[in-house]
Amino acid sequence: MNQTITPWEVKGEIDYNKLIKEFGVSKIDKKLLERLEKIAKKKNMKLHHFLTREIFIAHRDLDFFLNEYEKGNKVFLYTGRGPSGEIHLGHAIPLMFTKYLQDLFDADLYFQFTDDEKFLFKKDLEMDKVSEYTKQNMLDVIAFGFDPKKTHFIIDTVHANLLYPEAIKVAKKITFSTVKAVFGFTNETNIGSIFFTSMQAVPAFLPCKLKNRKMACLIPHAIDQDPHFRVTRDILPKLGYYKPSSIQCRFLPGLQGIKNGKMSSSEGFSINMSDDPKTVKNKINKYAFSGGKATLEEHRKHGGNPDIDVSYQWLVFFEPDDKKLKKVYDDYRSGKLLSGELKAILIEKINQFLKEHQEKRKRAEKQLDSFVLRV
Amino acid sequence: MNQTITPWEVKGEIDYNKLIKEFGVSKIDKKLLERLEKIAKKKNMKLHHFLTREIFIAHRDLDFFLNEYEKGNKVFLYTGRGPSGEIHLGHAIPLMFTKYLQDLFDADLYFQFTDDEKFLFKKDLEMDKVSEYTKQNMLDVIAFGFDPKKTHFIIDTVHANLLYPEAIKVAKKITFSTVKAVFGFTNETNIGSIFFTSMQAVPAFLPCKLKNRKMACLIPHAIDQDPHFRVTRDILPKLGYYKPSSIQCRFLPGLQGIKNGKMSSSEGFSINMSDDPKTVKNKINKYAFSGGKATLEEHRKHGGNPDIDVSYQWLVFFEPDDKKLKKVYDDYRSGKLLSGELKAILIEKINQFLKEHQEKRKRAEKQLDSFVLRV
Repeated sequence: MNQTITPWEVKGEIDYNKLIKEFGVSKIDKKLLERLEKIAKKKNMKLHHFLTREIFIAHRDLDFFLNEYEKGNKVFLYTGRGPSGEIHLGHAIPLMFTKYLQDLFDADLYFQFTDDEKFLFKKDLEMDKVSEYTKQNMLDVIAFGFDPKKTHFIIDTVHANLLYPEAIKVAKKITFSTVKAVFGFTNETNIGSIFFTSMQAVPAFLPCKLKNRKMACLIPHAIDQDPHFRVTRDILPKLGYYKPSSIQCRFLPGLQGIKNGKMSSSEGFSINMSDDPKTVKNKINKYAFSGGKATLEEHRKHGGNPDIDVSYQWLVFFEPDDKKLKKVYDDYRSGKLLSGELKAILIEKINQFLKEHQEKRKRAEKQLDSFVLRV
Repeated sequence: MNQTITPWEVKGEIDYNKLIKEFGVSKIDKKLLERLEKIAKKKNMKLHHFLTREIFIAHRDLDFFLNEYEKGNKVFLYTGRGPSGEIHLGHAIPLMFTKYLQDLFDADLYFQFTDDEKFLFKKDLEMDKVSEYTKQNMLDVIAFGFDPKKTHFIIDTVHANLLYPEAIKVAKKITFSTVKAVFGFTNETNIGSIFFTSMQAVPAFLPCKLKNRKMACLIPHAIDQDPHFRVTRDILPKLGYYKPSSIQCRFLPGLQGIKNGKMSSSEGFSINMSDDPKTVKNKINKYAFSGGKATLEEHRKHGGNPDIDVSYQWLVFFEPDDKKLKKVYDDYRSGKLLSGELKAILIEKINQFLKEHQEKRKRAEKQLDSFVLRV
């Protein structure tokens, strides 16, 4: 197996168990799920299907975060987005879950837009373009339903007055050797990219600095971002803050199959949050890797394989109803449900999801100002 | 000979001719002095003795800057200070000359306080302390008489909103290989220090960015800062700006002798701008390396050696009157002037200089706000 996972590249079929071991993160176990379910029940909420279906699969120190929360101590959430293009369905996963966590813990969320990162790491990307993506991405994020009173957007180049003075405190404690080992940098890496992880560390303690109190932080993120926070976790106690906790998800598989790593817009096979129903239908019908048999007769006789069928795998992410999902699984397995029919179910599900999103996004523009962190 | 010259370390006896060759800068020649003198005459000013005495000894593209000035195109000056302690007499040299250049060219001056640099490069220095030095240093800088309407202080951590978005544009074009070669960094250098030169580059083009026009920039600085601007000069044309020009001075020798590199406060033998007359007298009498003979008789008979006498060398910096200086030289050479008498001349000169400075500094506090760049 050949897997490459860095914050800037995800390639090959991903063995999550191997990755969890390599990164040194912990699987979310039954005990943690029970604790989360208990908290959810108190809020009349359910355990999110991203948790029961091992989509959010790993964590660091989630227990510590829950301890702090249960003691009644103030906690906060931190996540972010590198604005290098349109938001697509793959990005939606951690965003949906972050919204869930905000409701669950009734917590402030600091949301970082790393425009500097995208500019520095993408050779031909100009800053004007990144700034346009940032604005567009902010509207999409708002559309996920975050609480405007409790959600604070931080844009690296816009909030540099806040971030840079703290980032240098982090940077002073990180050598080139460290980032070389953690991120695979070389002597030809540019010095902005080398510095960047310090900027990504800051929101994990900035609220503590602003409010002058120690607070536990939980970072929901896709597992490829773990290297950043591994470094951050090493440094923060040296600056007098708690190590941030994290909860990490696996990737929405690419349309062309689970062997092709995560869904990536650069490959051209992503479904964007702005796609219209016809585009979605065409993309899924044309590209979604099928677990069905070659002929109708064979399919009816032997059934399809939902484990490799991208449409089914996407329903695992986007169909919250366990019963409905099980029925699709069983029917596809038995051959009762054809590949085209399975795709149709997915198409309807995704289009409904996108329709709601696009409506909310239209109303986001006038909310934008209230989301940007003011200090 | 063993010389180490980086922006953070100057050690050993300095051979300026060798350094000029190594750095690839040009000596200021007669033709340039004549051009400068012509400009000075138009302003009823004289050629500064720092120029005639080869204290400002080297430059990069000074001709280009003068061409632009003579064409009537808008030009500006940029210099800076790393606030890691009190300002001493060594720091006064480029400051005095920058004030002269501001008068000569009637130009805006952008003055950068690199508080981030000092924090990042000095292992045990905390940010609170750097911020205190920054404030104190600003008052000293103001006391040199800069025009409040044309002088703009930039403090790296305070003006990060302005600097960081531009610094990453510089940083994207500099690899670790480059800073490794230019500054002698290693894998154990912290990633903030690695990034820093990008921040020092920004004021060389920020005014062009703010005013949306190309302008020639002249950077007066001590020669140890040349490596930064060598990198800056490589990058700026790629961002659509002129290469900045520079004019570079040698160091005020340390009290203990010209073989000991530049005067350094960390060695404990510096004279600070805040020193009182008695302290100055004691330091010079106690530490200033003498070119005199061992006994009075020998001195009267053979004369002293002004070329190695620190008191005489300091007068080269601080006694603008050529005739007075020549008389001291001749009298000391002949044995007419004793070492103690020479020291007394220097002590009076320095104390007069510091007295005026300290008076101006008292008035600086209420001017501070008007010096800080507002955008």
